[in-house]
Amino acid sequence: MKIKYELLKKEANTLARRGKLNTNYGVYDTPMFMPVGTLANVKTLTPEELYEMNSGIILSNTYHLWLRPGEDIVARAGGLHKFMNYNRPILTDSGGFQVFSLAQPKDITEEGVTFKSHVDGSKLFLSPEKSIEIQNKLDSDIAMSFDECIGYPSTYEYVKQSTERTIRWAKRGKAVHKNENQSLFGIVQGGEYEDLRKYCVEELVKIGFDGYSIGGTSVGEGKEVMYNMISYATKYLPKDKVRYLMGVGDPLDIIEGVIRGVDIFDCVLPTRLARHGNAFTKYGKINIRNQKYKEDFTSIELGCDCYTCQNYTKAYIRHLITSNEVLGGRLLSIHNIRFLIRLTEELRKAIENDSILEYKEEFIKNYLSNNK
Amino acid sequence: MKIKYELLKKEANTLARRGKLNTNYGVYDTPMFMPVGTLANVKTLTPEELYEMNSGIILSNTYHLWLRPGEDIVARAGGLHKFMNYNRPILTDSGGFQVFSLAQPKDITEEGVTFKSHVDGSKLFLSPEKSIEIQNKLDSDIAMSFDECIGYPSTYEYVKQSTERTIRWAKRGKAVHKNENQSLFGIVQGGEYEDLRKYCVEELVKIGFDGYSIGGTSVGEGKEVMYNMISYATKYLPKDKVRYLMGVGDPLDIIEGVIRGVDIFDCVLPTRLARHGNAFTKYGKINIRNQKYKEDFTSIELGCDCYTCQNYTKAYIRHLITSNEVLGGRLLSIHNIRFLIRLTEELRKAIENDSILEYKEEFIKNYLSNNK
Repeated sequence: MKIKYELLKKEANTLARRGKLNTNYGVYDTPMFMPVGTLANVKTLTPEELYEMNSGIILSNTYHLWLRPGEDIVARAGGLHKFMNYNRPILTDSGGFQVFSLAQPKDITEEGVTFKSHVDGSKLFLSPEKSIEIQNKLDSDIAMSFDECIGYPSTYEYVKQSTERTIRWAKRGKAVHKNENQSLFGIVQGGEYEDLRKYCVEELVKIGFDGYSIGGTSVGEGKEVMYNMISYATKYLPKDKVRYLMGVGDPLDIIEGVIRGVDIFDCVLPTRLARHGNAFTKYGKINIRNQKYKEDFTSIELGCDCYTCQNYTKAYIRHLITSNEVLGGRLLSIHNIRFLIRLTEELRKAIENDSILEYKEEFIKNYLSNNK
Repeated sequence: MKIKYELLKKEANTLARRGKLNTNYGVYDTPMFMPVGTLANVKTLTPEELYEMNSGIILSNTYHLWLRPGEDIVARAGGLHKFMNYNRPILTDSGGFQVFSLAQPKDITEEGVTFKSHVDGSKLFLSPEKSIEIQNKLDSDIAMSFDECIGYPSTYEYVKQSTERTIRWAKRGKAVHKNENQSLFGIVQGGEYEDLRKYCVEELVKIGFDGYSIGGTSVGEGKEVMYNMISYATKYLPKDKVRYLMGVGDPLDIIEGVIRGVDIFDCVLPTRLARHGNAFTKYGKINIRNQKYKEDFTSIELGCDCYTCQNYTKAYIRHLITSNEVLGGRLLSIHNIRFLIRLTEELRKAIENDSILEYKEEFIKNYLSNNK
């Protein structure tokens, strides 16, 4: 089936929305944070660990799976769910972001993008049709249209031209999209220009998609510019379709996104931070390598309900991380992902209580208190 | 409490023994394989995963924990069980093996061993008393006497001299051992010389220990020499005490050890193999990187009851390993450890049925069939 978004409630003082997503694999609450499973696994973790964190949809990367192991192998395994043993919904991106970030140099034409594989340097070509074809084979629940992820800053002229091409690409992708069990999202580009974001939304809606992503944020612009980009998109997006802000996972950005009417977020931040010994806490990020945690026999975050905080101390995790033991990164990944999922759970409650601005104020006060 | 070994049955045709070990953390069946948790974790795995594999005692390394995080931190955490959250028995080695294998160069005197830390090159000194003191602080359930792990080959004269010193060291260690909740094992050295193994056993028994380890095997000698070393020890060891063969984990060696009357084994092999993409199977070891598994959508080992084999295919694990995803090594570690634990479960059944020689023959036939 196609994904179905149900808007349950708008928050009284902001654009924040409380909703539900009906998917092939059950019903999930929004706003929601999606952990990232780049290469058909959320780094170091099993599906069961994600279920325990109350994870809903996860994101997996078309570009990476295309290169390794290849979409045909995933298809012959019975699709991505079966391949990686994840029995909740999976969203795949289009490959666009990786092509424009990992795989320099490139040649962009109307037809698509030529670039070099970051794995073996071989020459590759990705087009809107090819991206959809790969995602069809991966058999994710939600596919993304192929887009150009525009760098910041870019001239109005370039953003306009690129956005128009992204719209044409979205149309071409939809024309070849055939998987009835897979939803297809359009991606709103338009840089920091409100009229271009508006134009892009309108054109994508004309084509008609099952949901809409907001792209081209968090590629170098400052926070205010990013928040504006979000506002310029959500302002014009249809209320009856789900909205997904791509690649954003900083807790403060999630809150700002929710307040601007975003429903879904994803980011590699929680697992990447974990590998480097960093943990989210209510009072800001901490680095567990810090000497002061050497004999700290309390959990990463008081009151956290994650497996890590229920069972391990800072001193132990510090020992694992400083000894380069993989279990350390695994335990921090569990905590960090659960932290962001719990944040969205709290944001949902705040929407229900029409108290999201108070929630934000309190959250920021603690989060920026520098772990005092 | 001190560990208590209960001999339940001797196999009819060999020296194999079926027994039970009463420990501070419950009763466990022998013969038994102990996974190795070098730095207070079995690499990549949680305690719950080990429980699920039916793991009993695990081994942790005194030398490594002494260097990182330091035994005082572990003690202040409430001991090793609490520090690492493992609620089954823990055995610590003496540090001797690491001092003689990792930490060159060294100076051996009657007092102890001076050597360089493999972590930061600092000069360190380990003595029988110091080793016991560290293990007391770690608060493991079973501590090992500090011994010299003799290389192979060594002259009779050197082995004799070293073995006599190891006996004096065992006596000194016992004299300072004070933890009433910790058992202390003596380590049988003596190289490949039956009279020295016999002498060592007799002297250790005079001192009196809660169990006996067989040391100095698997340090370069061939299989036959190793099997003889085992026989020379078990032949003289008391029947009412448990026997632990240190550092041995090859499936065929475990079988040969059990047949010679060994009760406990440990080895880093299952996790080390896993990190390199290797898996034990009934039909011999396989390397999952092999091209032929690229589209093999069957489990690592047909009929295996481990989490990995119940949920994942060779093609998926191959993808993870070749993509350097940590989850791959984690899944193979689960399989490999469970493989060895299951092997000891089967050996226990074979002892009960007096069919261990038939079991060995069948096992070897399959295992050496080169995965046909």
